[in-house]
Amino acid sequence: MHATAFVPGHVTGFFSTHPDERPLRAGSRGGGVALSHGVETTVTDDTGVTLNGESISVEPVERVLDALDVDLGVACETPLPLGSGFGVSGAMALGTAYVVSAHTAAGLSENDLVSLAHRAEVESGTGLGDVVGQARGGIPLRLEPGAPGYGAMDGVPGGSRVEYLSLGGLSTADVLGGDTETLSVAGERALETVRETPTLATFVAASRRFAEEAGLLTDELRAILRDVDAVGETASMAMLGETVFALGTGLSDAGYDPAVCRIHPPGAGLRVE
Amino acid sequence: MHATAFVPGHVTGFFSTHPDERPLRAGSRGGGVALSHGVETTVTDDTGVTLNGESISVEPVERVLDALDVDLGVACETPLPLGSGFGVSGAMALGTAYVVSAHTAAGLSENDLVSLAHRAEVESGTGLGDVVGQARGGIPLRLEPGAPGYGAMDGVPGGSRVEYLSLGGLSTADVLGGDTETLSVAGERALETVRETPTLATFVAASRRFAEEAGLLTDELRAILRDVDAVGETASMAMLGETVFALGTGLSDAGYDPAVCRIHPPGAGLRVE
Repeated sequence: MHATAFVPGHVTGFFSTHPDERPLRAGSRGGGVALSHGVETTVTDDTGVTLNGESISVEPVERVLDALDVDLGVACETPLPLGSGFGVSGAMALGTAYVVSAHTAAGLSENDLVSLAHRAEVESGTGLGDVVGQARGGIPLRLEPGAPGYGAMDGVPGGSRVEYLSLGGLSTADVLGGDTETLSVAGERALETVRETPTLATFVAASRRFAEEAGLLTDELRAILRDVDAVGETASMAMLGETVFALGTGLSDAGYDPAVCRIHPPGAGLRVE
Repeated sequence: MHATAFVPGHVTGFFSTHPDERPLRAGSRGGGVALSHGVETTVTDDTGVTLNGESISVEPVERVLDALDVDLGVACETPLPLGSGFGVSGAMALGTAYVVSAHTAAGLSENDLVSLAHRAEVESGTGLGDVVGQARGGIPLRLEPGAPGYGAMDGVPGGSRVEYLSLGGLSTADVLGGDTETLSVAGERALETVRETPTLATFVAASRRFAEEAGLLTDELRAILRDVDAVGETASMAMLGETVFALGTGLSDAGYDPAVCRIHPPGAGLRVE
């Protein structure tokens, strides 16, 4: 039987970018939420990558397969939309690293697997911090950017119901390729706020403030956030997607019909029967 | 309703000791297994500490309560025996940090909580590496000793059934207070072996070799390990207790009636309904 890995989805609430020519040192600082909705990845004997049964090309996954030098493919299943701020490409890359390494007895530790997937995301320009957040689980804070051995993580204690509503995609590569200075200043301030008071309430409030300051809100996202404000709760935007998330029942209380999951305490790992 | 924390039990397979006058830098290097059997801790309005309903004095727990400066107590429940190599004192200390911080809105991050409990264990002489292993979950490798910000962790990918059989206690303080040089040389070698080939099989084999080399096996423990060898499987000793553990079915296949749990991927955390 082939190994299966589960990697939680990951919604970033706020971040600052920290590029570096050395991919393991490149990354982001910031905070996010690991989700019980995630990506299940299984090795297939056919080469090629599928997502929910459809063939797809995902650069970080190709890079992981190349790095492990195997003639195998992977099949990924997820309820999450790709390209909408849930870290699906990172989850696919990390899940691929887990299952291919298990299948081939490649002898890699968990830090090795995370480093492999982080490098693949950074080199593809598809993400800077999802993979290390997904590896940790819970409510990960990226204190210092980079892969294990370079970065540093902390976490906000607690758990919660998570609601989300996705309107569509934003290109991470386009945003990260543009001017990120304003965004990074706002992201550093948000991280400082949450480190001072590491609670769920502070996390959501800092994420909301970041979304306003970073200038990434569309009119449609802003309208939904205001509807949630109107019922006395707080939602924010998933970085980087046209997606709103709330910890608790803010979206359903405001009359929307969101997808519902939970904060997922464990990080990525093999599913073992 | 008062918050409850779950902290996994933790069996160390091999270790080297790294004392330091600064408790956050003191610790052990080595490898262990986080267990689905663990300690549930809840805040009580009465002061004092109970374990499975009985009043008990556990120094690291007292130290955590003192550090948080509260007039509260905690009630702990566990199927694991205290003082037998399962990290119960560390789990109680870390669980206390989680629930008291949540109860008092102390504003501590997960790294803060782990540091508090690690310091309490080190200062009490009751443990050097359980708390950071319990915070991480899975099959934690302690690459560098110490609390978050000082130590460094990795993990062996995978999961498994865990069987254990406990004959009684060993005093961690007595062993750690004695000559640990032989033990530490063997522990460093075991860690190197597992880092080269991070698999469950290597982990158990390295633990078994460490148990022989560290000179801590009693005749009774040795007899059980040989019975498991005789059915073609491998068990080892939980450091530090008169306890045998196996990943898989080694103890039951050898005719024993062990307790059964699983490797627990998530680290310590609050239980949230």
